[in-house]
Amino acid sequence: MTQRGTLGIAVIGTGRMGADHVRRITEVISGARVTAVADLDAERAKQLAAGIDGCTAYTDPSAAMAADDVDAVIIASPGPAHEAALLTAFEHDLPVLCEKPLTPDAASALRVMEAEQKLGHRRVQVGFMRRYDAEYLKLKSLLDSGELGRPLMLHNRHRNADVLPYFTEQMLINDSVVHEMDVARWLLNQEITAVTVMKPKPSGNAPEGLSDPQFVVFETDGGTLVDVEIYVNCRFGYQVQAEAVCENGTARIGEAHGMLVNTAGRWGGSVAPDFVERFVDAYDREVQAWVDATLRGEVTGPSSWDGYAAAAVCEAGVRAQAEGRRTEVRLIERPALYR
Amino acid sequence: MTQRGTLGIAVIGTGRMGADHVRRITEVISGARVTAVADLDAERAKQLAAGIDGCTAYTDPSAAMAADDVDAVIIASPGPAHEAALLTAFEHDLPVLCEKPLTPDAASALRVMEAEQKLGHRRVQVGFMRRYDAEYLKLKSLLDSGELGRPLMLHNRHRNADVLPYFTEQMLINDSVVHEMDVARWLLNQEITAVTVMKPKPSGNAPEGLSDPQFVVFETDGGTLVDVEIYVNCRFGYQVQAEAVCENGTARIGEAHGMLVNTAGRWGGSVAPDFVERFVDAYDREVQAWVDATLRGEVTGPSSWDGYAAAAVCEAGVRAQAEGRRTEVRLIERPALYR
Amino acid sequence: MTQRGTLGIAVIGTGRMGADHVRRITEVISGARVTAVADLDAERAKQLAAGIDGCTAYTDPSAAMAADDVDAVIIASPGPAHEAALLTAFEHDLPVLCEKPLTPDAASALRVMEAEQKLGHRRVQVGFMRRYDAEYLKLKSLLDSGELGRPLMLHNRHRNADVLPYFTEQMLINDSVVHEMDVARWLLNQEITAVTVMKPKPSGNAPEGLSDPQFVVFETDGGTLVDVEIYVNCRFGYQVQAEAVCENGTARIGEAHGMLVNTAGRWGGSVAPDFVERFVDAYDREVQAWVDATLRGEVTGPSSWDGYAAAAVCEAGVRAQAEGRRTEVRLIERPALYR
Amino acid sequence: MTQRGTLGIAVIGTGRMGADHVRRITEVISGARVTAVADLDAERAKQLAAGIDGCTAYTDPSAAMAADDVDAVIIASPGPAHEAALLTAFEHDLPVLCEKPLTPDAASALRVMEAEQKLGHRRVQVGFMRRYDAEYLKLKSLLDSGELGRPLMLHNRHRNADVLPYFTEQMLINDSVVHEMDVARWLLNQEITAVTVMKPKPSGNAPEGLSDPQFVVFETDGGTLVDVEIYVNCRFGYQVQAEAVCENGTARIGEAHGMLVNTAGRWGGSVAPDFVERFVDAYDREVQAWVDATLRGEVTGPSSWDGYAAAAVCEAGVRAQAEGRRTEVRLIERPALYR
Repeated sequence: MTQRGTLGIAVIGTGRMGADHVRRITEVISGARVTAVADLDAERAKQLAAGIDGCTAYTDPSAAMAADDVDAVIIASPGPAHEAALLTAFEHDLPVLCEKPLTPDAASALRVMEAEQKLGHRRVQVGFMRRYDAEYLKLKSLLDSGELGRPLMLHNRHRNADVLPYFTEQMLINDSVVHEMDVARWLLNQEITAVTVMKPKPSGNAPEGLSDPQFVVFETDGGTLVDVEIYVNCRFGYQVQAEAVCENGTARIGEAHGMLVNTAGRWGGSVAPDFVERFVDAYDREVQAWVDATLRGEVTGPSSWDGYAAAAVCEAGVRAQAEGRRTEVRLIERPALYR
Repeated sequence: MTQRGTLGIAVIGTGRMGADHVRRITEVISGARVTAVADLDAERAKQLAAGIDGCTAYTDPSAAMAADDVDAVIIASPGPAHEAALLTAFEHDLPVLCEKPLTPDAASALRVMEAEQKLGHRRVQVGFMRRYDAEYLKLKSLLDSGELGRPLMLHNRHRNADVLPYFTEQMLINDSVVHEMDVARWLLNQEITAVTVMKPKPSGNAPEGLSDPQFVVFETDGGTLVDVEIYVNCRFGYQVQAEAVCENGTARIGEAHGMLVNTAGRWGGSVAPDFVERFVDAYDREVQAWVDATLRGEVTGPSSWDGYAAAAVCEAGVRAQAEGRRTEVRLIERPALYR
Repeated sequence: MTQRGTLGIAVIGTGRMGADHVRRITEVISGARVTAVADLDAERAKQLAAGIDGCTAYTDPSAAMAADDVDAVIIASPGPAHEAALLTAFEHDLPVLCEKPLTPDAASALRVMEAEQKLGHRRVQVGFMRRYDAEYLKLKSLLDSGELGRPLMLHNRHRNADVLPYFTEQMLINDSVVHEMDVARWLLNQEITAVTVMKPKPSGNAPEGLSDPQFVVFETDGGTLVDVEIYVNCRFGYQVQAEAVCENGTARIGEAHGMLVNTAGRWGGSVAPDFVERFVDAYDREVQAWVDATLRGEVTGPSSWDGYAAAAVCEAGVRAQAEGRRTEVRLIERPALYR
Repeated sequence: MTQRGTLGIAVIGTGRMGADHVRRITEVISGARVTAVADLDAERAKQLAAGIDGCTAYTDPSAAMAADDVDAVIIASPGPAHEAALLTAFEHDLPVLCEKPLTPDAASALRVMEAEQKLGHRRVQVGFMRRYDAEYLKLKSLLDSGELGRPLMLHNRHRNADVLPYFTEQMLINDSVVHEMDVARWLLNQEITAVTVMKPKPSGNAPEGLSDPQFVVFETDGGTLVDVEIYVNCRFGYQVQAEAVCENGTARIGEAHGMLVNTAGRWGGSVAPDFVERFVDAYDREVQAWVDATLRGEVTGPSSWDGYAAAAVCEAGVRAQAEGRRTEVRLIERPALYR
């Protein structure tokens, strides 16, 4: 145990996610403080910085990352801006926590991996925060123990009460199912090799043009079948569940629990209204783990390879969704740095 | 309320299922008694009849059905013998409870329906006993109420601890998944239009030559997607679960419950070892319902049409399983008698 | 297995409970039929008998019990009429299923036991139907196995949605808590030695003059502490729960379960509205077990001793409730017939 | 949102609890650092301080509290040392987080309150960490909302797998049940007015001389009955549960939940092995809340009055336990500072 140094962090992007990370680092996390915020919207960055001692506002991410009091970077800008921000961070050899997606497509993710390999060491942790959720961690630990035998199937449910009007069918895959892609790869230690997307008749809750819900099936190189129900207008709340079916048993997470109430002819409890309530602890744990590892001089957590694999599976998923047929995923050979 | 007459029942087939029905009628059910048992194995029939007052043993089902003290028939012989037994029952115009399958294939089921239509009234109740399970009935009632909106998906789990050595891959469909076919059709009031079967790498528990577990997807004419995990060597017990995902909520049945024990670092309960413990009440309720309806002069429950539809979907399922691709189901137009 | 004879049953008392037993024997139970009904209300008895083939209506219970076609008796008349009916049944040496209470007080219960002892064999099964509930049976079996060690405490909850206006504070003990008395004695194989009753400030739902809920503590001769929450105006439904705390673990029954629904921000299920839904199977099983034992020439189930012990504990309970202090229970030595 | 100053904290007492607070402040909590540790065991204090930048070791708590870099104090020394440490903290007008008990008896707690009143403002938060547990907070919020009506009873379970050999019967009350005393007072906004302790025959797991388990009943000035099962050798794990019975419903917390596993004939999950797993988040939240309030210049959370009331109820509880009878609790009138 030691009183660690304090990490000075630049937060790139001050939208909902970025502002939440600023709050988290300032009020929740140990061992770090926000020394820079950068946003194209100069006014928003300035207002955010104003409330924090020793924090400077920038419009240019490069300038923020060049500052003396910046030891590490959180990238929370829109996906298309990630590649440039990552390459700049690499120039300054700064550790990065990059919100998902690493980049919006596999080709740009490949470029990021190439640049990181030139550095010769990992610099990036990708923001797949479910890997830090207490229940997913328990499931991972159980599967890794082999206690139930080899995993044969993984059933997933991903339900949102509703989505914003601009939510598209591609976003079902790229924004929502991408989490199941990552946890499946991580829980199983396997790569996804093919994607199939099936669509029932849409819910009356689904806005015009959004075929919601959908049912996605992944095949993996280890022979495990992964299915995902994605339903983003289910109205009743936010619910993420996973059940691993192994040779000698099954394990399920994401069940409703907590306070149980009997009243008015019913027993039960409340469903989380949104991902904030469900995953707030996972976000806190993710950022703390990144700060802790960085203070130790290490890089842990999901890597650029995980970001690339997610992008490649998403591309196949969106094609499978559009064309209505099983679509194979093609990955490059895994570079040594990411083994 | 009335003291009803007592139904004299001939039980055709005295294997496990037939003998259990004899016990049920004799010791559990109100309003019926076994007056005849028939089996090719004359000795087995004789021994069974010997223990029951007023019960005669036969080797020929026709002779049993012709007896004066026989008012109704239970067919519990092997599937290939069902068609002949059903046609004989029709000759005597006797009400029949026919164990599943109605007949082993769609063609013979069509012949049975034709013969029943010539009688001009329904005579057959097919032994899909899950329709009499208390939880399935609650789910059916909830779906029919429309309270949660239209059903969009139906997720099913069907797990057996293990199976006998002669269990084949076709039996996965014909003996096990056939129950999910029937409850899906019944719960949704929809017909199944296509079947897809997917196979993960088999469990180490699966015997040579049996690809177990499998994952089956049905499409319906109402646009609902139905998926079924079938795993018959899961070792931990017998478990049948269903979750309906509707527009505004979900409903799940088949959860473990009952006595909850804390001991040795764990909380929880026991899983039913086999279908007997899980569905014994459903069998009792099914036979009582059939006796009650028969005493009222009515025929209710799953019809020959349901038996035919199951046979047709099974045929498509076995083809889909063998050929590894989506296979459509072709049904004749539904005859007026079964509407 | 055998086709048994059919038991001819006289039902004494045709109120709610009696009429329900008539329905049960006629429509649910195997091996019995109602051949006589008796009620002071001649019209009610006649109407009930009219619907049943071969059933005669009586106003005098003795006449009913003397009839040739009566093999056994169910006593479902009001408690104060039980002693006379039981003694009459003993004169005819008829097996009796006597609804609780055996008699309204310990003194009359003693007289019944004396008369039964003169017969020289048990004739009475008392209607403590919880002993036939599937979950209580599981708990009993677990406790008897010794798997969790010796029982140290038993926590009970007994909640009714509401009660009729004439419900008195004594009825809390005599009609409701009496069930917990019996199951505690039965589950633990111990006698209750003292009763304490505590009263919180009454619920606003409680009618004037009824201090509801109350909290009752039993001590036993085996050193187990038994506590009972009795709350008969809880509004949300009917709920009976028990948790046994043993040396190495606990076991709990009566949890809500069955279909689980997610909707409108909540997960959960429905609470039984009343004891009929919760215990209908226990009543069916109780009466079937009594018919089966009677056809075998046996008497099983709760005995007159159990009825007497319940009456003695109730008397102590009502005194404890009125006087606000721990009250000891005095039982006679257990006669040989009931050991 | 603002980058706050960083609180310099002196931790008095470096045993298990103190060392854990040092770790928490250093590695988990935002906005604070440990600048002083004090322990009579100079070596232990020195070793602990050595690992932390800018932290000085003391043997004398007064010296630690007098240091310039100390802004606030955590008292984690043995209970008998608390009074002196608190009075010293008052001399320096330092905010204090004092581990429970405030002091070991009501008389010394009164002296602490008098000294705090002379300061004219609250300085003390007592370490009743359950008030910061997420489930207790939900229950509190539900009760305060009045949604279920007034609370009538509160049932509590407090189970430990085992205790150290020196654990005494008084510690059952003073160390374990004291938590239920505090949460009852807090959840109900009521004072406890009488205590009764009942003892079943001890478990075979209980060491010689420790009557374990026990059953404790509190009466409150609001007419609510509170019962507590305390069982500290239950072997199966650590379990804390509470059920509030209100006029129109009940609410229960502390149920087992999280990952649910089917295997080897059982469904269920794991029970927490000890209070660390069960309440680690509550400790983190408690200390963060104290740091946050202190940085804002406020004092929140359980007060010296709560510490005094707990001590007074414990004294009555230990008497009730020894004498085997209902014992009343006498509190002074609540001083204005604590209203």
